[in-house]
Amino acid sequence: MTDSSASAADSAGLYPAERLELARKAAAGAGLDALLISPGADLRYLTGYQALPLERLTCLVVPTEGDAFLVVPALERPAALASPVGDLGIDITGFAETDNAYELIAGRLPAGVRRVAVDNHMWAEKLLAFTAALPRAEAVLAGEVLQELRMRKSPAEVAALRRAGAAIDRVHRRMGEWLRPGRTEREVARDIADAILATDHVTVDFVIVASGPNGASPHHEVSDRVVRTGDPVVVDIGGTTEDGYCSDSTRTYAVGEPHPDFRELYDVLQRAQHAQVEAVRPGITAEALDAVGRDIIAGAGYGEHFIHRTGHGIGLETHEEPYIVAGSERPLEPGMAFSIEPGIYLPGRFGARIEDIAVCTENSGERLNLTGRDLVVLPG
Amino acid sequence: MTDSSASAADSAGLYPAERLELARKAAAGAGLDALLISPGADLRYLTGYQALPLERLTCLVVPTEGDAFLVVPALERPAALASPVGDLGIDITGFAETDNAYELIAGRLPAGVRRVAVDNHMWAEKLLAFTAALPRAEAVLAGEVLQELRMRKSPAEVAALRRAGAAIDRVHRRMGEWLRPGRTEREVARDIADAILATDHVTVDFVIVASGPNGASPHHEVSDRVVRTGDPVVVDIGGTTEDGYCSDSTRTYAVGEPHPDFRELYDVLQRAQHAQVEAVRPGITAEALDAVGRDIIAGAGYGEHFIHRTGHGIGLETHEEPYIVAGSERPLEPGMAFSIEPGIYLPGRFGARIEDIAVCTENSGERLNLTGRDLVVLPG
Repeated sequence: MTDSSASAADSAGLYPAERLELARKAAAGAGLDALLISPGADLRYLTGYQALPLERLTCLVVPTEGDAFLVVPALERPAALASPVGDLGIDITGFAETDNAYELIAGRLPAGVRRVAVDNHMWAEKLLAFTAALPRAEAVLAGEVLQELRMRKSPAEVAALRRAGAAIDRVHRRMGEWLRPGRTEREVARDIADAILATDHVTVDFVIVASGPNGASPHHEVSDRVVRTGDPVVVDIGGTTEDGYCSDSTRTYAVGEPHPDFRELYDVLQRAQHAQVEAVRPGITAEALDAVGRDIIAGAGYGEHFIHRTGHGIGLETHEEPYIVAGSERPLEPGMAFSIEPGIYLPGRFGARIEDIAVCTENSGERLNLTGRDLVVLPG
Repeated sequence: MTDSSASAADSAGLYPAERLELARKAAAGAGLDALLISPGADLRYLTGYQALPLERLTCLVVPTEGDAFLVVPALERPAALASPVGDLGIDITGFAETDNAYELIAGRLPAGVRRVAVDNHMWAEKLLAFTAALPRAEAVLAGEVLQELRMRKSPAEVAALRRAGAAIDRVHRRMGEWLRPGRTEREVARDIADAILATDHVTVDFVIVASGPNGASPHHEVSDRVVRTGDPVVVDIGGTTEDGYCSDSTRTYAVGEPHPDFRELYDVLQRAQHAQVEAVRPGITAEALDAVGRDIIAGAGYGEHFIHRTGHGIGLETHEEPYIVAGSERPLEPGMAFSIEPGIYLPGRFGARIEDIAVCTENSGERLNLTGRDLVVLPG
């Protein structure tokens, strides 16, 4: 956990009040009658309110005609009032343990509601309860509307992602303290997790330590495998900062001098990742940016071993739009933030991945992870 | 994070292979054609597979006619095979980045599927993608079926909850190291969170430190309020252990001698909570158990200040069935585990809550939290 006073000052402007109105206008433009937003990144984005998804309903209601309001369990109302949502001037209604909150909301929506949009992560039990309470309304996803807002980061959001990037970079720079021959992946990961929490994050979101052949599984997490001299080790780590923004960076280390085949593979990967970062600019499509790295890797004969997309957007969630993937014709725009993380995986032998978060600027891209990308060979 | 080798031995039998067949039979009995289970507690309960809910679909499919199978993103397949689900002998299919996993599943279900059940926490975007891929099938909640299994804990699960209870008790016993006048709630909470991670938990799920008047908000989390001499302080904490089971225990402390009115309130609360723990036995309904405490609190004149239910079930989730709440005629059965946590809240002054996890046994109840329930007065 981090010191909140400094962070509170830094995060000024992260959750501006006008977002509710922007969302309302976007919803109206999409032909929706209301947005129904349960706890998660969308709720925090729109109101600054950080609430956990629990069995009792908490829901921000944004009708396209009329005022937004928040419905919370009665016992959460004081916490809601004390949160940033208390400053927005919207009605906050508490309901009792035996009330039906879905019918309460249905009763307050304008008669004749035909099309409501729920946040993409709303639980099925809540979505089905809403469809029961609003039997004549079609339910669609609010993501279609909200991702258009969330995808384009404000300068304050980019600054928050920059702080998150600097924090995870500080953890990577200490890797030699923990990653040594004779230790298990799990032991190394535990130390990394402690360091993430001690370095300006409030949660550890994932810690992948994939040594030797485990590195050939892109989403291997940790195991009791003992790191050996000569192992390449993929270390992919991230957490969430106090103001809600996420970090995510991968570096591949070698513990002692690795096999020459690994050096060759790593050089190809580094060229590909570098070329992709350099290719970031407004107007390039997500699929074109994906292809920049894929073509280099395929040209070196590793095409079949780059088995995932190039990257994912990042902000209040580790994975969000825009995805940098084949088939996406979305052109990049200033303010979009995403990972560039090509990888090459040789089953049974080893793998490598290099990941930076990049932000599209007015005319190019800015890397938010600034540790070196040359292969770091730690003492074996 | 905790040492996994000891935990792995202790947790033998936690995820038995026959659960898939029990779930299939229960689904057939409920008139369902298939269960569709995405990452979360249900998936872990049925297969032992711990996967994060992400944008790419991971889904266990349990048709009532035919064999169960798991669909995962291709890059997750090695991790799935290495997890306990790899030992179940079911088909694990990986899909490529540009495949439609929902149509893949729809194509493998028997023709004429009419009624499918999704896990209660499946994201709306996934539920709506399934309803698009299965336009003639009705989607309902799998919770109706699965909660009947999950609610009745096996002896191995009760043992896991007992270990979780002992772990959080060890944190409560050290409260005097951290909770002192002059420190902020946030500083105290940070130390508690570190201790939870250092004491046989892999995640911190919540840390409530509610001092003085903040104690009157049941779900207040932390603030920068400085703890003062004479403050009552509600401390409600919990985490998840490596084998997946959750802890949750509340104690209310006083930092220096509190106001006599608080002593009086606390004595009433302690009597109520004690009577509720003593009342646990097979056959008592959830609402009757709720009333045992509510009647004592109301009889002492605090009825309007006990503003929440008595408790919630606990297991692989902190909040699950059975809820101990007015209106629930569910009779308790051996193996059910739940919190007993009455509270009394005086707005503007202070509040108190006492919470133990209890398990219904063959003829009474067993407390899984064993720290004392007399008011602990820490040095002021």
